[in-house]
Amino acid sequence: METLPTLSVGQYTLVFNVFSLTLAAFAASTVFFWMQRGRVAPEYRTALTITGLVTFIALYHYIQILFDWKGAFELVDGAYVASGQPFNDAYRYVDWLLTVPLLLVELLLVMRLSKQETVSKGWLLGGLAALMIILGYPGEVSSEAGTRWLWWSLSMIPFLIILYQLFIGLGEAINRQPASARGLVSTARYLTVIAWLFYPIVFLFPMLGLTGAGAETAVQVGYSIADIVAKAVFGLLIYTIAVIKTDDEAA
Amino acid sequence: METLPTLSVGQYTLVFNVFSLTLAAFAASTVFFWMQRGRVAPEYRTALTITGLVTFIALYHYIQILFDWKGAFELVDGAYVASGQPFNDAYRYVDWLLTVPLLLVELLLVMRLSKQETVSKGWLLGGLAALMIILGYPGEVSSEAGTRWLWWSLSMIPFLIILYQLFIGLGEAINRQPASARGLVSTARYLTVIAWLFYPIVFLFPMLGLTGAGAETAVQVGYSIADIVAKAVFGLLIYTIAVIKTDDEAA
Repeated sequence: METLPTLSVGQYTLVFNVFSLTLAAFAASTVFFWMQRGRVAPEYRTALTITGLVTFIALYHYIQILFDWKGAFELVDGAYVASGQPFNDAYRYVDWLLTVPLLLVELLLVMRLSKQETVSKGWLLGGLAALMIILGYPGEVSSEAGTRWLWWSLSMIPFLIILYQLFIGLGEAINRQPASARGLVSTARYLTVIAWLFYPIVFLFPMLGLTGAGAETAVQVGYSIADIVAKAVFGLLIYTIAVIKTDDEAA
Repeated sequence: METLPTLSVGQYTLVFNVFSLTLAAFAASTVFFWMQRGRVAPEYRTALTITGLVTFIALYHYIQILFDWKGAFELVDGAYVASGQPFNDAYRYVDWLLTVPLLLVELLLVMRLSKQETVSKGWLLGGLAALMIILGYPGEVSSEAGTRWLWWSLSMIPFLIILYQLFIGLGEAINRQPASARGLVSTARYLTVIAWLFYPIVFLFPMLGLTGAGAETAVQVGYSIADIVAKAVFGLLIYTIAVIKTDDEAA
């Protein structure tokens, strides 16, 4: 359990509003992805079901995070001080544990590989993603720099294998995509990497001496934006790919 | 009603986070099973309706369990002590009473036996499952070892008859499954046995002297994982079997 710094009214309110924005964005994306399932060919509907599941699970966790944030501070003499109630960091990890494997499955489903390849790559990438999250957690809850570095490094191993799989292992499958969708599938891959890189960098903050009110604010705002990009914006790409392939295959 | 031990912040929070994860997993699975009904042939849609019902009922009970857990403890001097509000064990039993018979019905429906066999086996296995749960409960609420052993033994009788039915009574019906699905149907059967074995073992904990904070934490985490495996992972197997049989029969 981390010790919460005292925040200015501006810092506390900024984080609160960003949480609220993220919550609204995930609620809206969930409805959009599920409602638009009928817009794409049956082969792509499972991808949209799962795309909506990811934002749905994230919506649940941001509701919890929002209320936790509210309970963890109280306004005393014009500043927000820790109320003694914990701000539960684990919501993020539980969220990632459930959603990150599903994000990779979305991408595989919209690529429409052979059934066998989808299943084998799905288990491989999903398993690596879960392992990556699990290995990060013991470091996250530790305040000792050595322990943090150890688990950070261990967690980077599955992360690098996932990158290798996305760029080398799936390279040939991406070349097999129809020309109209190939660019977007490749963009989805880059978006994944760029959004995901944010997390191990934020993890390093306390080890680099970035602590206190400013760092706490930056971390919470940064995680929220990274979550929106990695889940809702990524999901919109998946949706667009499914629409383009649907129209191409009908033509 | 059991007396709750004092838990460390780590123990209390671990259980809370596992409950929250379980709740999110059941919410997501429910939507998935119901939304994907259209993916399978009409013959298998009832199986998916029921698969989603099981996780939906479990979702309701985990919402109650999560709030009960929150209310049953309070943070005093860095430890979680019993607040005096009860933690209601009966939610689990009510959940099992409703869901365990349905789990067996899911399996029968996806096997697509004759209508007559489905009905007769459904009543037999569903009735045995309900009896198994009802017989366990008087032992669960007793703190006397003799009473616990008596009801545990009585509850094991229907459990063993269910196992006999799954492995001998349904053996011939499993051999009649299409080759592509036979392995998975058999796996579903093993998953049932392995996940279900967890419950009578946990029941024995207090009789084996396993009590206190560590045991309470292990029991709650263990029940949650067993529930996820027995309901959501089992449901995913049922879904996969239904998809494979749908595609096979269309070919």
